[in-house]
Amino acid sequence: MADPRVLRAMATPLLGQFDPEFTAIMDEVMALSRLVFQTASARTFPVSGTGRAGLEAAMVSLLEPGDRVVIGECGRFGLLLEDLARRCDADAVVVRAEWGQALDPVAIEAALAQAPTKVLAVVHGETSTGVLQPLADLGRLARAYDALLVADVVVTLGGAEVALDAWDVDVAVGGTQKCLSCPSGLAPVAYNARAEDALRRRRSTVRSNYLDLGQLASYWSPARVNHHTAPTTMVYGLRAALSAVAEEGLPARFARHRLHGDALRVGVAALGLSLFGKEPPERRLPMLTPVLVPDGVDDVRVRRALLDDFGIEIGAAFGPLQGKVWRIGTMGYSARRQNVLLLLSALEQVLRHEGWAVHAGAGVDAALDHYRSAGAAASPEHDDGVEVRPNVR
Amino acid sequence: MADPRVLRAMATPLLGQFDPEFTAIMDEVMALSRLVFQTASARTFPVSGTGRAGLEAAMVSLLEPGDRVVIGECGRFGLLLEDLARRCDADAVVVRAEWGQALDPVAIEAALAQAPTKVLAVVHGETSTGVLQPLADLGRLARAYDALLVADVVVTLGGAEVALDAWDVDVAVGGTQKCLSCPSGLAPVAYNARAEDALRRRRSTVRSNYLDLGQLASYWSPARVNHHTAPTTMVYGLRAALSAVAEEGLPARFARHRLHGDALRVGVAALGLSLFGKEPPERRLPMLTPVLVPDGVDDVRVRRALLDDFGIEIGAAFGPLQGKVWRIGTMGYSARRQNVLLLLSALEQVLRHEGWAVHAGAGVDAALDHYRSAGAAASPEHDDGVEVRPNVR
Repeated sequence: MADPRVLRAMATPLLGQFDPEFTAIMDEVMALSRLVFQTASARTFPVSGTGRAGLEAAMVSLLEPGDRVVIGECGRFGLLLEDLARRCDADAVVVRAEWGQALDPVAIEAALAQAPTKVLAVVHGETSTGVLQPLADLGRLARAYDALLVADVVVTLGGAEVALDAWDVDVAVGGTQKCLSCPSGLAPVAYNARAEDALRRRRSTVRSNYLDLGQLASYWSPARVNHHTAPTTMVYGLRAALSAVAEEGLPARFARHRLHGDALRVGVAALGLSLFGKEPPERRLPMLTPVLVPDGVDDVRVRRALLDDFGIEIGAAFGPLQGKVWRIGTMGYSARRQNVLLLLSALEQVLRHEGWAVHAGAGVDAALDHYRSAGAAASPEHDDGVEVRPNVR
Repeated sequence: MADPRVLRAMATPLLGQFDPEFTAIMDEVMALSRLVFQTASARTFPVSGTGRAGLEAAMVSLLEPGDRVVIGECGRFGLLLEDLARRCDADAVVVRAEWGQALDPVAIEAALAQAPTKVLAVVHGETSTGVLQPLADLGRLARAYDALLVADVVVTLGGAEVALDAWDVDVAVGGTQKCLSCPSGLAPVAYNARAEDALRRRRSTVRSNYLDLGQLASYWSPARVNHHTAPTTMVYGLRAALSAVAEEGLPARFARHRLHGDALRVGVAALGLSLFGKEPPERRLPMLTPVLVPDGVDDVRVRRALLDDFGIEIGAAFGPLQGKVWRIGTMGYSARRQNVLLLLSALEQVLRHEGWAVHAGAGVDAALDHYRSAGAAASPEHDDGVEVRPNVR
């Protein structure tokens, strides 16, 4: 669900992109982005495309043909980083981990130690497997080996700690449609002086015009150097989304994602289902719960019934996990008690039709217990004052 | 101005990108796009970025390093095509014409005759100068020399004849924020079997992942091969915008753009101002009127006063024309009598303050005369039933 405040903002009439009213909005978006990325860097602005566009902007702007790049891969979005690097004709060294596990910093260090490396690129939140990759260690390694750390924070931004400056992340790329609860279409990026210096020291022209970070930064600066026509409406939406984050406050927002994700996981366990992956809770995404499809239960039929009969969409899995894992998101505006309880309630019904033995009400009761023990049942959750309707169309 | 129907559509709650309700919307967008591009090709879908992203998608997907490309340049957006081709490391041969003039087909043919050429890339509507480039001749030339004709139709799509199949245009790239009156952020593209064949025959991987037309086409097809997360809200907006075009009908829509553009030009002349450029009316854009800034009148001060005091934004000019030319758009939902008369009325006031001698009411009266003689004053213009407010914020 998009935040209703975001949707309302997107119905606002347009401003010209050099209208002082609009450039003031741009400045506000940059300031709010710095808060969410936890950075003081001035280079904090949205790329005019989805998260993938932001990631490609980072890679194509930093990497010249032949540049060495170490890529951590333990899921589909690590594979995307690999593809992006290869299309730049970079010398891509890929450090893999089993899907469902986090990257091993020792293996990353070994790859960095082999040869001078320009970029270390990793995924912070691997939504294909539910793994949360600790970044502070990798930030230290990148500095030690004089590489730039590029992190995909598409799913974590606004939902879990993303602390660029504290972790020495040089470039981070977010998305709007995950924990920011804004429609897909912009990629907030942030990069620091080290990355800016690398952009300036390039020997060759960036291969992309649309995704040339240096040009985009000149537009998103007091110079306002003309580039593409800003997607005004998306910028309105992003401003509303970031304002909602600032209003709630990062600690409260992260706690809310943790609370509802945990309630979901407790409920899922009470339905007799198991989570995919072997990492401990601190290396799992709070806002994305990967559930093993139990034997004898049909992946597609369950997702279809949830969507058609209950209006609830849960994610299919990718590649080797297809048909074996469901991915349930509790992100941004959707990270709320009603959604967790509705999903657990509906999932019980659908599993019953699949012949899966469930103790009636087990999932909902376990989640309610969790809310009670977490002391959250009494305190009203974050709300913008509009009537909250379940995620049913 | 965005069409209010488009803005309302953009406040619609989100659907998942593989939800059958959303894929039905995608199919509808493709069908409506075919109508607007006047093509039967199945490869008609929006790229998830602004017009520039669509143009880069066309160039980077078609051109391999070393491929010969002939580019027609008679303005800023021709220069963009040149930049895009160079970033592809293509062998770019640029045929230039003076800014304010159309390209000379004889010069284009001479360039094509020199060596085998993969792509001929031109701008249909050069918004930097107001020139409308006839495409049918260039389509014939491209076929004769076995090149693909790529046309930038960002400003013309939905506002003037764009007839892909009739003109043998192989790839066309539009924008949403001009005559479609949808916010910026998507680039409707269309390409035919010849272009598709060229994409398939590439020897090397496309250098971009985000803008790889072949991958995008696989997503915008019954196969629905997963790529980036579709910008759902922008797609809602585009559907509403294209539906508005279909409802009005292409001939009526083109006539409306012609009518209001002509009324504006008659009014501008009556204010004692001259148009920039020497091309005859049939090679001028109906929806973009370039006006010479008269001697003794300050470009910036006039635009600032129009924006601050009257809420009307007119465009500055680029490069060599900066400070010398105003560019006044009458596009899509904004191509309406009220806007033309409000602008002429306000411009008269602002010019008076600049010391420019104007006969009071001359611009408005000339435009009203034009409307009367065009027989349009009596017939209500296209409207969606909402209260029409002037372009004042």
